[in-house]
Amino acid sequence: MKKALIDRLYDKVAQSGHVCLGLDTDPDYLPARFREGFASPLEALFAFNREIIDATLDVTAVYKVQIAYYEALGLGGLRVYADTLAYLRQKGAVIIADVKRGDIAKTAEMYAKAHFTGEFEADFITVNPFMGMDTLSPYFPYLRENDKGLFALVATSNPGASDIEGITDAKGVSVSERVGELLLREGASFTGQSGYSAIGAVVGCTNREQTKRIRERMRDCFFLIPGYGAQGGTAADMADYLEGGNGGVVNSSRGILLAWRKGGSDGMDFAAAARAECVRMRDEIRAHVGA
Amino acid sequence: MKKALIDRLYDKVAQSGHVCLGLDTDPDYLPARFREGFASPLEALFAFNREIIDATLDVTAVYKVQIAYYEALGLGGLRVYADTLAYLRQKGAVIIADVKRGDIAKTAEMYAKAHFTGEFEADFITVNPFMGMDTLSPYFPYLRENDKGLFALVATSNPGASDIEGITDAKGVSVSERVGELLLREGASFTGQSGYSAIGAVVGCTNREQTKRIRERMRDCFFLIPGYGAQGGTAADMADYLEGGNGGVVNSSRGILLAWRKGGSDGMDFAAAARAECVRMRDEIRAHVGA
Repeated sequence: MKKALIDRLYDKVAQSGHVCLGLDTDPDYLPARFREGFASPLEALFAFNREIIDATLDVTAVYKVQIAYYEALGLGGLRVYADTLAYLRQKGAVIIADVKRGDIAKTAEMYAKAHFTGEFEADFITVNPFMGMDTLSPYFPYLRENDKGLFALVATSNPGASDIEGITDAKGVSVSERVGELLLREGASFTGQSGYSAIGAVVGCTNREQTKRIRERMRDCFFLIPGYGAQGGTAADMADYLEGGNGGVVNSSRGILLAWRKGGSDGMDFAAAARAECVRMRDEIRAHVGA
Repeated sequence: MKKALIDRLYDKVAQSGHVCLGLDTDPDYLPARFREGFASPLEALFAFNREIIDATLDVTAVYKVQIAYYEALGLGGLRVYADTLAYLRQKGAVIIADVKRGDIAKTAEMYAKAHFTGEFEADFITVNPFMGMDTLSPYFPYLRENDKGLFALVATSNPGASDIEGITDAKGVSVSERVGELLLREGASFTGQSGYSAIGAVVGCTNREQTKRIRERMRDCFFLIPGYGAQGGTAADMADYLEGGNGGVVNSSRGILLAWRKGGSDGMDFAAAARAECVRMRDEIRAHVGA
């Protein structure tokens, strides 16, 4: 029997490390000389993604494609988004579509259809739980029958996170902690052999105290951890989320896509530079988590 | 000088009533005989939207296009989404893109570019404030310079709304109320001559007590009120949000798009049926708000 999605991700982490490569590809990230080789900017964009993917498949756990960057380019951009997902599927990669959808009833069913089937099919999507747990349930049939998964926003590390996520109730439980509790409850029936659920959580790194508190309360939850590199998070910050050396992936986007800029070259080595950065990041995280 | 967006919406409400027509168009909503007249389902979908729009322009305040329904149809569906927005722009309609985006920094900038310019350009977009007020600020340059607007989720009426929106802090202030306060603060500098801000709020109807409390706390905030008709909300429920007869629009989607099914015909009169339902709804709401 084929392993469940969350267990395949778990195995990928064990084998290839914790790197989640964020394909938040802005056309400006492409080296000028590379761009010039293509008839259109969109063709260049897809080729750039493809070369990055080819160079990093064995040193990453998962790819996270941020739809906003493609949506900003209109229908042509979304064609590149679809093509990038198709390429990742063809290569057997695990894909997170970072779409942060949050809606209810039939609208959420439409989003599930959009991102778990057809041209935009991904393995996981990110979701925003603000409106409540009925924003998640329309995806459950796909988790059960199509081996799909979710990463729900729980605690982010942006300056505004305290506005809502940080609100605490009369018992001192924060909104983030409450979301975590609800996710655990919903996620219990989607637990794989690895012990982790197909309903994961997006958790940023703010301070070690909060990080430890979140991990303690969410033992069976697989984490998608943004903020490494360009956004200032360090491997040491992430380590408390990765107790036992697994249970999460760490996203880096610009740090990898733009690694070529640090080399002082014309950028034609961008894929090799991306790979080198993945390896460096993988090893740094492994060193901190003792994996 | 051209009036500001929020003031044009205010005038539309005064002139044409409170109906926000939700173009959440599922291909299944099209009468079979109408569908058969087209070479492709997507062509039929766009033609259906066009006929609905033509028949209702003078009896609606604004159109809300729910992107999920189009996204579920892949790139071809998003082409119909873009074409529908272009058609609405051409007709001079005010457009809300119901995309409920909620992200930060450069990702939010990309969403702003995606939905306030180019092929997917709308007037307002709906946003999800879960991650905090820095999910809104990347849109502000477009509010200032491109006459755009936002509707942020504040209080919804789905069963799960209590999960997060309903959490109350030690002082008894709910997450919804706190979001409302933050929106008012952010929205103050975008207030039009009508007294309403270009940062509006999505507020559902649960009970009259909550409705009155929200309106009292958010006097200068224009409301997008979902839940009429198919979702069970009545004009009486909405009236407390529309004190003085303006300050909000009431969305109906299926109630209008599927009005033809109540007629017992083959549905070829769907546009006339949609118009009749808009007029009925407009008059019912007006009767309740005393406008």
